[in-house]
Amino acid sequence: MSIAAINARNQFRGRIKEIIHGPVVSEVDVETPAGIITAVITTRSIKDLELGLGSEVLALVKATEVSIAKL
Amino acid sequence: MSIAAINARNQFRGRIKEIIHGPVVSEVDVETPAGIITAVITTRSIKDLELGLGSEVLALVKATEVSIAKL
Amino acid sequence: MSIAAINARNQFRGRIKEIIHGPVVSEVDVETPAGIITAVITTRSIKDLELGLGSEVLALVKATEVSIAKL
Amino acid sequence: MSIAAINARNQFRGRIKEIIHGPVVSEVDVETPAGIITAVITTRSIKDLELGLGSEVLALVKATEVSIAKL
Amino acid sequence: MSIAAINARNQFRGRIKEIIHGPVVSEVDVETPAGIITAVITTRSIKDLELGLGSEVLALVKATEVSIAKL
Amino acid sequence: MSIAAINARNQFRGRIKEIIHGPVVSEVDVETPAGIITAVITTRSIKDLELGLGSEVLALVKATEVSIAKL
Repeated sequence: MSIAAINARNQFRGRIKEIIHGPVVSEVDVETPAGIITAVITTRSIKDLELGLGSEVLALVKATEVSIAKL
Repeated sequence: MSIAAINARNQFRGRIKEIIHGPVVSEVDVETPAGIITAVITTRSIKDLELGLGSEVLALVKATEVSIAKL
Repeated sequence: MSIAAINARNQFRGRIKEIIHGPVVSEVDVETPAGIITAVITTRSIKDLELGLGSEVLALVKATEVSIAKL
Repeated sequence: MSIAAINARNQFRGRIKEIIHGPVVSEVDVETPAGIITAVITTRSIKDLELGLGSEVLALVKATEVSIAKL
Repeated sequence: MSIAAINARNQFRGRIKEIIHGPVVSEVDVETPAGIITAVITTRSIKDLELGLGSEVLALVKATEVSIAKL
Repeated sequence: MSIAAINARNQFRGRIKEIIHGPVVSEVDVETPAGIITAVITTRSIKDLELGLGSEVLALVKATEVSIAKL
């Protein structure tokens, strides 16, 4: 099944630069034009999606999850 | 009280380009080198932080909130 | 751009049964074999994805967002 | 203290089918009529709630945490 | 159906002091010994739970949703 | 860079009482006047922020992440 479009407003395309594996969740660092984006996802998803170094991915964030700080 | 550092791994610095006001929550669009980042925060926070067009802000996302899609 | 696969472990396929529009966010009720799934997303996303009654969609939830209560 | 009702719109009743234990967080897979729902919660909560295989539970998700993808 | 216990580690008991109603989501301010806790939930949940000023409630937060800032 | 103010409505000031280290994420328990607040953050953030027992911190939660249960 292919997904046509997703509502996550904030999408960052890049390649996986590093994966830190844990027994339950793993950290995935994605190199994007915006810098490194870090995601924590289930280790099972990493296997299911067959993610590895260099995999081309999209990092997605829901708008309701973004906080704003004033400088 | 000034905050020295926050653990949100994913931080995007930019300026507010647009605000869509709602009675409870509002949408804040931040122009960053990574493109537009969209946040939905409480309208009360916008008043408390005195946010407006051009305000310099930091958009922050926890790593546990980032999803990964394979392309 | 078509997405091949996403890490959100919990995916519910269905059709949109109701949309409650708000100025910033809207409620989308999706009829699935598991029952009604309710999502709150930005109203802008509803326009961008051209969502309407009967649209075939996937409701997705990250595993880190699921809480467990004991009965 | 017993909770009468909770605002999480999306509730899935089922039984725990698998637990993957980690030092900080654990994965809990719940078998429901809607299929397997996966939650990542603190390992301490698993002990506090005395969750094990076969425990009857409710998996809950806030509507603001649900994303929508178009097919 | 009564819930015996929930895994949300962070629970704050209190009474509703203010509700700001919106068409889709509403803000609920809960007065607790820890101060005011603010929640944004669907307006439909407020009706379903029959929440009003003075209602005795529990505000719950998953541990994965809490950010830490250093002072 | 110092942050002047953040939109997270719910802020709890306290000191770290316990850290449970994991390979990817760690649990941080903060002693506050409101009781113990538990956060799960990346282990890398703990190193980056140089957090340890007794560190003075702010635990922050977005209003959209707070659930309400009726008692």
